[in-house]
Amino acid sequence: MQLDITPRESARSSSHSQALLARTYERVRGTTKRLCAPLSTEDYVVQSMPDASPIKWHLAHTTWFFETFVLKGRPGHRPHHPAYEVLFNSYYNAVGEQFPRPRRGLLTRPTVAEIWRYREVVDAQIGELLAGTVDTRTLAVVELGLHHEQQHQELMLTDLKHAFAQNPLAPAYRDDRPQTSQASPPLAFVPHAGGVVEVGHAGRGFAFDNEGPRHETLLAPFALGSRLTTAGDYLAFIEDDGYRRPELWLSEGWAFLEREAVRAPLYWSKAGDGWELFTLRGQRPLDPHEPVTHVSYYEADAFARWAGARLPREHELEVMTRPLPVAGNFLDSDALHPRPAGHSDGAIQQAFGDCWTWTMSPYTPYPGFRAPEGALGEYNGKFMCNQHVLRGGSCVSPASHLRATYRNFFPASARWQFSGIRLAKDA
Amino acid sequence: MQLDITPRESARSSSHSQALLARTYERVRGTTKRLCAPLSTEDYVVQSMPDASPIKWHLAHTTWFFETFVLKGRPGHRPHHPAYEVLFNSYYNAVGEQFPRPRRGLLTRPTVAEIWRYREVVDAQIGELLAGTVDTRTLAVVELGLHHEQQHQELMLTDLKHAFAQNPLAPAYRDDRPQTSQASPPLAFVPHAGGVVEVGHAGRGFAFDNEGPRHETLLAPFALGSRLTTAGDYLAFIEDDGYRRPELWLSEGWAFLEREAVRAPLYWSKAGDGWELFTLRGQRPLDPHEPVTHVSYYEADAFARWAGARLPREHELEVMTRPLPVAGNFLDSDALHPRPAGHSDGAIQQAFGDCWTWTMSPYTPYPGFRAPEGALGEYNGKFMCNQHVLRGGSCVSPASHLRATYRNFFPASARWQFSGIRLAKDA
Amino acid sequence: MQLDITPRESARSSSHSQALLARTYERVRGTTKRLCAPLSTEDYVVQSMPDASPIKWHLAHTTWFFETFVLKGRPGHRPHHPAYEVLFNSYYNAVGEQFPRPRRGLLTRPTVAEIWRYREVVDAQIGELLAGTVDTRTLAVVELGLHHEQQHQELMLTDLKHAFAQNPLAPAYRDDRPQTSQASPPLAFVPHAGGVVEVGHAGRGFAFDNEGPRHETLLAPFALGSRLTTAGDYLAFIEDDGYRRPELWLSEGWAFLEREAVRAPLYWSKAGDGWELFTLRGQRPLDPHEPVTHVSYYEADAFARWAGARLPREHELEVMTRPLPVAGNFLDSDALHPRPAGHSDGAIQQAFGDCWTWTMSPYTPYPGFRAPEGALGEYNGKFMCNQHVLRGGSCVSPASHLRATYRNFFPASARWQFSGIRLAKDA
Amino acid sequence: MQLDITPRESARSSSHSQALLARTYERVRGTTKRLCAPLSTEDYVVQSMPDASPIKWHLAHTTWFFETFVLKGRPGHRPHHPAYEVLFNSYYNAVGEQFPRPRRGLLTRPTVAEIWRYREVVDAQIGELLAGTVDTRTLAVVELGLHHEQQHQELMLTDLKHAFAQNPLAPAYRDDRPQTSQASPPLAFVPHAGGVVEVGHAGRGFAFDNEGPRHETLLAPFALGSRLTTAGDYLAFIEDDGYRRPELWLSEGWAFLEREAVRAPLYWSKAGDGWELFTLRGQRPLDPHEPVTHVSYYEADAFARWAGARLPREHELEVMTRPLPVAGNFLDSDALHPRPAGHSDGAIQQAFGDCWTWTMSPYTPYPGFRAPEGALGEYNGKFMCNQHVLRGGSCVSPASHLRATYRNFFPASARWQFSGIRLAKDA
Repeated sequence: MQLDITPRESARSSSHSQALLARTYERVRGTTKRLCAPLSTEDYVVQSMPDASPIKWHLAHTTWFFETFVLKGRPGHRPHHPAYEVLFNSYYNAVGEQFPRPRRGLLTRPTVAEIWRYREVVDAQIGELLAGTVDTRTLAVVELGLHHEQQHQELMLTDLKHAFAQNPLAPAYRDDRPQTSQASPPLAFVPHAGGVVEVGHAGRGFAFDNEGPRHETLLAPFALGSRLTTAGDYLAFIEDDGYRRPELWLSEGWAFLEREAVRAPLYWSKAGDGWELFTLRGQRPLDPHEPVTHVSYYEADAFARWAGARLPREHELEVMTRPLPVAGNFLDSDALHPRPAGHSDGAIQQAFGDCWTWTMSPYTPYPGFRAPEGALGEYNGKFMCNQHVLRGGSCVSPASHLRATYRNFFPASARWQFSGIRLAKDA
Repeated sequence: MQLDITPRESARSSSHSQALLARTYERVRGTTKRLCAPLSTEDYVVQSMPDASPIKWHLAHTTWFFETFVLKGRPGHRPHHPAYEVLFNSYYNAVGEQFPRPRRGLLTRPTVAEIWRYREVVDAQIGELLAGTVDTRTLAVVELGLHHEQQHQELMLTDLKHAFAQNPLAPAYRDDRPQTSQASPPLAFVPHAGGVVEVGHAGRGFAFDNEGPRHETLLAPFALGSRLTTAGDYLAFIEDDGYRRPELWLSEGWAFLEREAVRAPLYWSKAGDGWELFTLRGQRPLDPHEPVTHVSYYEADAFARWAGARLPREHELEVMTRPLPVAGNFLDSDALHPRPAGHSDGAIQQAFGDCWTWTMSPYTPYPGFRAPEGALGEYNGKFMCNQHVLRGGSCVSPASHLRATYRNFFPASARWQFSGIRLAKDA
Repeated sequence: MQLDITPRESARSSSHSQALLARTYERVRGTTKRLCAPLSTEDYVVQSMPDASPIKWHLAHTTWFFETFVLKGRPGHRPHHPAYEVLFNSYYNAVGEQFPRPRRGLLTRPTVAEIWRYREVVDAQIGELLAGTVDTRTLAVVELGLHHEQQHQELMLTDLKHAFAQNPLAPAYRDDRPQTSQASPPLAFVPHAGGVVEVGHAGRGFAFDNEGPRHETLLAPFALGSRLTTAGDYLAFIEDDGYRRPELWLSEGWAFLEREAVRAPLYWSKAGDGWELFTLRGQRPLDPHEPVTHVSYYEADAFARWAGARLPREHELEVMTRPLPVAGNFLDSDALHPRPAGHSDGAIQQAFGDCWTWTMSPYTPYPGFRAPEGALGEYNGKFMCNQHVLRGGSCVSPASHLRATYRNFFPASARWQFSGIRLAKDA
Repeated sequence: MQLDITPRESARSSSHSQALLARTYERVRGTTKRLCAPLSTEDYVVQSMPDASPIKWHLAHTTWFFETFVLKGRPGHRPHHPAYEVLFNSYYNAVGEQFPRPRRGLLTRPTVAEIWRYREVVDAQIGELLAGTVDTRTLAVVELGLHHEQQHQELMLTDLKHAFAQNPLAPAYRDDRPQTSQASPPLAFVPHAGGVVEVGHAGRGFAFDNEGPRHETLLAPFALGSRLTTAGDYLAFIEDDGYRRPELWLSEGWAFLEREAVRAPLYWSKAGDGWELFTLRGQRPLDPHEPVTHVSYYEADAFARWAGARLPREHELEVMTRPLPVAGNFLDSDALHPRPAGHSDGAIQQAFGDCWTWTMSPYTPYPGFRAPEGALGEYNGKFMCNQHVLRGGSCVSPASHLRATYRNFFPASARWQFSGIRLAKDA
């Protein structure tokens, strides 16, 4: 694993960084717990589709990660429960068998209380570990585990949203703060001269293995949309019969529309003459200024073609957003939904947060990439087939989890993530 | 509906019987509640297959039955919740739309607590109703609702067993009392001369519509096995390669074996040289003296063919068991599993309880049968196709629910009910 | 097998009947050949659904039947081709493996010419056999093979019709004679007093094993519709929203409608304001006087409920039609489609031919039935589950194949046979 | 469409090149006919899977291409048959509806003879057209049609092979010439320094739209295997448990193995201790020296990982093979199967022909690519999602069809094409 052993925030000294890591551990694990505060016990149990997982599975799996990759095999360590190794293994064949993914929602036991107890036990053990002398490899795995946990924080909210959306009662995860709106600025295209550029992660901060090796690539001149595509932009596409014109669609995308009877982004529904939206804060009218989200790659691609543009390449996004601060509407803002872009000076807006940007780049290994040896090598590399890269993070990504080189990836049909659209053009 | 308005226990006077019905209501509803005592909140939520339902759905649906068919439309009644009419409608098209059955396990809300509250509210309203002046038609529907509730008591336990069986932790519903064994007597065949006999329900006691009209039928001479087929009997079939010899199987049954990779009754598993069983009291070794249960019609039929016998016709069972007391190993015994037959004098044993007996009789209407008008007519008649009749009740049927004319019915592939085998022969 | 060793037409002497059988063999096999005259080579190859088979498979399988059950094992016999035993075995597990049924349409070889050659070779061998001294068991199997061949003659035409119907070109099997029409008489109901009656085959003529043993059964008084239900009768049901009213349908039937988007009988299509029909003589307007055909059991049952009637029991049909001559619109009439009933004196019309009548009787064994030992025992008994009995034959049944005790059987969803409706009522 | 209007062979003058095109038309269409010579009528009809098509469909569709894109709309042209526009449209939504692809094998009509007649009629019309004055756009479409026909020549053989392989008789398409063998040379790796290179089609010769625009790309230093991976190489992978070690597989690939029970390349089968192969010349023992073929991308990728190498990028292949003559074991050699590489001087062997090389490059548009306007724009662009590029052609590609910039593409699970493996390494 191409892990920097030093947590990103500091590199002054090993003991200093170890203490920092311990505090980060508490903070990240605490965030997971806080995200569960609004839930009833019943909400932890269900799995609304094979791609999603029950909340209690997320809680256990992220804990399993620390137990399996950090604690297991250490002197004196005894497995918390003999069945958990199989039950909460996601896809690590090197660790062993896995309980079948599509059946995770059939398990009522261990109970939620038992899983919270599991977390407490492992947290105590990790706390003890980090209070002692630890090798840098172990520290690196703890850090990896925290980034892994942050990924699952995002998934917990997207999976929960998907489950709630199946319910005619349309339950709200939170209902304490209405979304505020503002006018979205006109779309501009920001040019880039292209050429040979360096891409991929470099430096001491944490990054996933798939962000490296840093390497050169050649970009043709291009221009990037200044903001995310709005719901209003997208409505124009729908109203221009965008979902009914095969010439706008990839062949696979057209088959997807037919098969799934897709006629609008996920969570949109017709309400009288207008449209409504199911959100983590419940059902509400669509705001034309907010970014469109929960679209598949197929829809993003068809929209771009209709708009006389295309989707960006992942490295076009990377070179344009690398100079910008990693700031925006993340989980930390508590909005739980993408927000309108607001006033603009024509520069790139919404570079991070709000919603993930589909790129036209298939998810492939960088030149020279090799998955690490062992079980942790199953983290990213084995998914490099038939997925597309998404960039930039979303309104449910923890801010400290993102960076300009970050590569998220999903199959072209995935819609339950906060995925959106930014246009690009050849110069 | 061919309902007797008087509860079975008495017929002296209308006001007397109404008071009795009120007490029966409390008792039956209380039993449902007691059955839930061992459950964690999580256990109420899951649906392990489309044929099963979450426990909380059962709780709500049986309550919905009383609200819809007894309370709805009465002066002053207001629906408990506007969404419940759709959410907890099982299959009554005349009432309206239904939330799709295979998706019942995706609903985390209403919570278990909200559903208990729903029950309390409806119980109070029914209690009030039964304390006043009520027409006989309404009383009949309340009585029907109680028999309906008893059916769901049985389903709650079979559905829960199925859900628990998906879990590698093999949770026990109850673990307070081990099963005791005793030797099973040898199988004898008890003859009957046949002839024209009367079958079907008659008299004032409660019966479902499908048990009538009472009518004559002609039986050829036959003989009935004196006890249920035991696990030991069935093991001999397995060890004689019963599951691998197509000549023993119906064509559909053989296809079922291939498709589902069936090689033993449901909940059996190989353990070393022997077999284990998953029960409501957890995993344990198979007892050769206990009745075999959780077999499909296909398995019952193949076993009978292998044994040189056949399955009984439903009316062969009815005429042989009608003279016997409706007593046996029912839900009330708290065994939660079929028990060995015990000492025998060669007469029919285990006529009721332990496990349902598959009959070779397809589930068809009796001559002159007509489903009642209106929504309650959807209760039984519309399922009279491609199902087989089972007789006698099981270890999870409430004793007061059964009688000799009772017709249960399931498709030939169903295995999650406590279904077993009694052999028959042509004389 | 409960076969009468003497062909039906005569019983005078064994040698006489053997000569008769030889002539019958030539006649029946010749009919199969004549049925193929209008076909192009391509028409022999396709399989339009798993329930149907390619014409060339039918030709080979019926020949395989004679080779396997009559010739195989006789001194000097050598298999025509080593692969045919598997390729053309339909479902006889006792004979051995079978090429998978749903893949029969993938086999381009053996060619049609090779299969005709196979037929010639086997015909010559059977001819030689029948010219010598033959035991009565063998004669009985030859006779069975001819009835088997006649069943496949019917299937060849229904399978071909189904295949042609998939083709936008709507090819006609024959286009040499238009259907003629005549007014259909009003429907009357012909009563029967019921009582204990004898049913099932008796006597020396040929019958399939499932038609016996002859036995007594008890019928309640009933009345039978005087003619088949017409397309016009059925149109009234459609126009009264019959396909949209769940209260008319079995639960399984309603699910079938939803799943298969069924809104009319198979081969009906809307054409302007009216309806058209695809027939073996091509596409043409619907004639309201002709019997409705190509309906499932579900549709037949729903129609009967809508009409305030029910479907007949199989033995109601048997006792009413047994006294009548086995005459009607069979394959021999060359009409290839059901015809209007014509002038009536109020007696039972269309007792045989035109289209098979769905009965409400599930296909079950008669009391005392036992499938014959050995491979030929797989003929009928193993299908006695989840099928309904149909009676009377159709416009593509050979006349000499039918009799009043004949039990055809299909699953409730089958529509590609010439299946129709006759109403019945409780008296 | 980025078509050069001049056929590749010449550019001297427009009339000269038009005459040349006419001769090419006759030659290419004649080749199609010659490929059908060994077939029986039955062989033209079947479709063994949705990805394949019946031979007669290929014959009609390629003809439809000329009729639709060249003849239709010309003065005096009348459609050959009103139904053909729909029946033989593959996927051109801009042309109109299409008969559903998975049902192509259900059509017995038009007959093979009728389709040959269709070809004759269209050939005559095209011949007449090319004898007169034609605009260059039309000439370009005719040329495109011929390359399209050549693609279908390859598909006819791979589809036929797949259909024949379903048949237990294992029919041989041709049996006139056995494969000869020779020792395969050891594998060497040929290095390339990388850098900014030009890729994509340039110049006047024909190319498909997806081969352009020509553009610069940046390659890291790499080395390419000197020959294709042999069956012997691949056997070592199998014998090292390659199909059972999840760490070697992409996550999707492992799921593919499980789902499809894949344990060897398509058309391999165990025979005693060794392996056999089904080929267009029938069943025969595996030759360890011949290139492995009929592998999925997943298998190619897993093999490469096991071998400590990787699959090449498409432009690595392009820059290494561009200097080489487009020569090798093509359709023209009549071998109909990949052949051993033979003696080697360490340079790149088998650059063209034998079998298509899977590349690790997803099939994406080149920078600046735009699909042409209109129906012909549906040719390549709309498939640029979830497919991988294959390079180099195969033993059933016509030699005149290939070039170094040629991009073939198939989904990762496709195995019925002659797809093989060439290893690559980072330098």
